[in-house]
Amino acid sequence: MKIAILGGDGFVGWPTTLHLSDQGHEVHIVDNLSRRWIDTELGVQSLTPMDSIQERCRIWHEVTGRRLHFHLLDLAKEYERLKQWLAEHRPDAVIHFAEQRAAPYSMKTDRHKVYSVDNNVSATHNLLAALVETGIDAHLVHLGTMGVYGYSNVGATIPEGYLDVEVETTEGGKATQEILYPTRPGSIYHMTKSLDQILFQFYAQNDGLRITDLHQGIVWGTHTEQTRRHTQLINRFDYDGDYGTVLNRFLIQAAIGYPLTVHGTGGQTRAFIHIQDSVRCIELALGDPPSAGERVRIFNQMTETHRVRDLAELVARLAGAEVAYLPNPRKEAAENDLVVDNAQFLALGLRPTTLAEGLLEEVIDVARKFAHRIDRSRVPAVSGWTKELAQAVERDPEGKRLRSVS
Amino acid sequence: MKIAILGGDGFVGWPTTLHLSDQGHEVHIVDNLSRRWIDTELGVQSLTPMDSIQERCRIWHEVTGRRLHFHLLDLAKEYERLKQWLAEHRPDAVIHFAEQRAAPYSMKTDRHKVYSVDNNVSATHNLLAALVETGIDAHLVHLGTMGVYGYSNVGATIPEGYLDVEVETTEGGKATQEILYPTRPGSIYHMTKSLDQILFQFYAQNDGLRITDLHQGIVWGTHTEQTRRHTQLINRFDYDGDYGTVLNRFLIQAAIGYPLTVHGTGGQTRAFIHIQDSVRCIELALGDPPSAGERVRIFNQMTETHRVRDLAELVARLAGAEVAYLPNPRKEAAENDLVVDNAQFLALGLRPTTLAEGLLEEVIDVARKFAHRIDRSRVPAVSGWTKELAQAVERDPEGKRLRSVS
Repeated sequence: MKIAILGGDGFVGWPTTLHLSDQGHEVHIVDNLSRRWIDTELGVQSLTPMDSIQERCRIWHEVTGRRLHFHLLDLAKEYERLKQWLAEHRPDAVIHFAEQRAAPYSMKTDRHKVYSVDNNVSATHNLLAALVETGIDAHLVHLGTMGVYGYSNVGATIPEGYLDVEVETTEGGKATQEILYPTRPGSIYHMTKSLDQILFQFYAQNDGLRITDLHQGIVWGTHTEQTRRHTQLINRFDYDGDYGTVLNRFLIQAAIGYPLTVHGTGGQTRAFIHIQDSVRCIELALGDPPSAGERVRIFNQMTETHRVRDLAELVARLAGAEVAYLPNPRKEAAENDLVVDNAQFLALGLRPTTLAEGLLEEVIDVARKFAHRIDRSRVPAVSGWTKELAQAVERDPEGKRLRSVS
Repeated sequence: MKIAILGGDGFVGWPTTLHLSDQGHEVHIVDNLSRRWIDTELGVQSLTPMDSIQERCRIWHEVTGRRLHFHLLDLAKEYERLKQWLAEHRPDAVIHFAEQRAAPYSMKTDRHKVYSVDNNVSATHNLLAALVETGIDAHLVHLGTMGVYGYSNVGATIPEGYLDVEVETTEGGKATQEILYPTRPGSIYHMTKSLDQILFQFYAQNDGLRITDLHQGIVWGTHTEQTRRHTQLINRFDYDGDYGTVLNRFLIQAAIGYPLTVHGTGGQTRAFIHIQDSVRCIELALGDPPSAGERVRIFNQMTETHRVRDLAELVARLAGAEVAYLPNPRKEAAENDLVVDNAQFLALGLRPTTLAEGLLEEVIDVARKFAHRIDRSRVPAVSGWTKELAQAVERDPEGKRLRSVS
């Protein structure tokens, strides 16, 4: 199959590229390399030393004999070039990772809010319009997020994309209607993925585009089977307060003896998935495309849920680290339950890689190996959801209490 | 009150400007004049001769002694200037009409789709981000559309913005959750207004912005009390296939002896409101702002519903015109019922101006007066929702049958 991977230079994009190339697909990476520019803007770098995308592609060819094709293109800003590219290459499938993906970055300043909305909406919509215009019947697989649903405390099980609701009919009776499971995004970033849902629904309905939307949990881990094959194929690994995600941050903090940063009570429950399962899920979704005219297929791409403070204490015990309870820069419920339905991927054959001490230790080992590359001043999460929250974090950077867990 | 009217040069924006100025408010029009540029692009013009915005403001001052302030600014493209403008003027209320507002225009080509999405999303989001950044606690009143809900055939009464739904709890019980009434937009234009809803929900929740979203029906009529005061204050009046709206188009067609263009069976039921009520509703909404932290206030801004073919036959009888049943360029249900709740505006004191023969004749008179300005070749609606529908319209421009109604 000829597959275009938009955002193929990113944290999930790169291991997906290798995974699908390894299976014999012809893989084209389309990326504007914005993630590398954002590293430059923030003055941070991946914990793991990351070569240029051109060099990474060269190494993969050296190691496996397989070719990767890289195309520098800005989906959001170069509509005409995107259309030409699609018309020329006519991919069988398009995997769309090409969006700004960090909630704290999206909340940093008004400029970051505007960038995240403009970039993510235009990227997704340009792609949809160009697929219709070129008449390419590719299966579009999009990486969304569980976070579109917010984390309120109704304690409802999150189904896979849809909900049947009862409405009053004009004759005073009741009728059932299937709707997109209502979203309640808690950041600008999550909001853009909620906007994407509406775009997908429209283009599936009006133009018969075949779309799968993957609502992913928080990814942890760093290696996949393919990134292990050569040091220079290593995946990027973010530890900073904007792009680092919770469990990976704990593991890195443990490795460098930095107190594990829990924000608020740590009572937030979140969904998780290991990077290896993430690429496997994309493979499974690719293999099961909807037909034209079908509604958007939505999967919950996660394997387990955990409370943040439980993860902190688990990692602290494992590595002999301390836990710091810090003011929460996010506007969110202090505590929430979370139950997520992921029956579809299990039915397609996913065998979840769950949180095991061995895998956690592997990540700590990676972090220890590259600990000399860490700038400790970039570890705190400082992007406040409102000006008041940003100020509260600034006033109390060390947190209210520090607790030793052994 | 100091009021900023974004898009104050448009079809509803202009009479709203005059209405609120007439009540003694300090009114600032902020507009990029894109609607005039689109006239130029399409090679059409308002049926009524329309002076420049500067000249219109001058005339209003001459007639009433009141000043209008015009600011040329592109909301979607000039974020920094918008922020500066807000910081300098600090309005008490902002009325947001500044979006591309024609469904057929939004479906014309891929370029028009991309423009409509980029323009409308950026305009709305820039405004929200700038209000938060400048810390201006203005009441934001936005003009949305009933069309976000689509016109399916469940036959549900459309409530004012929200719906209580039952969800399964994690313990196997049931809980009730209030959600935004689910949208199902039928065009790119309508979709952008559905995206706006999500933006409003987020900014009301995260930043306590005070927002009222008006879900308006199809506006008909042309005069308001203020536009009648001087020939050069006359409102714009669109008759072309992209910007003309259904009832106004019938009235113009009747005036020039053009067969009334019904698309499909005419079984589509739509919600309507007279332009005079439209400006009155905005006044009522302005007077009843939500408080900070309150959910977005949503009103259905319409006064009656009608089936398209019934309107055509009514106008045909009134003016002795013919009705032409043409292929439908839109992808939509051939027939639908529509019942809409508008209790909130009635409770605030709206006394609906309903479809009366006198008012219909007034519009026909306006149309007859300016009939010499009409380019008959621009009357047909040719923007197809898909390539197949566009081709079907092209193959059969005269329609399947022409029926005389007397």
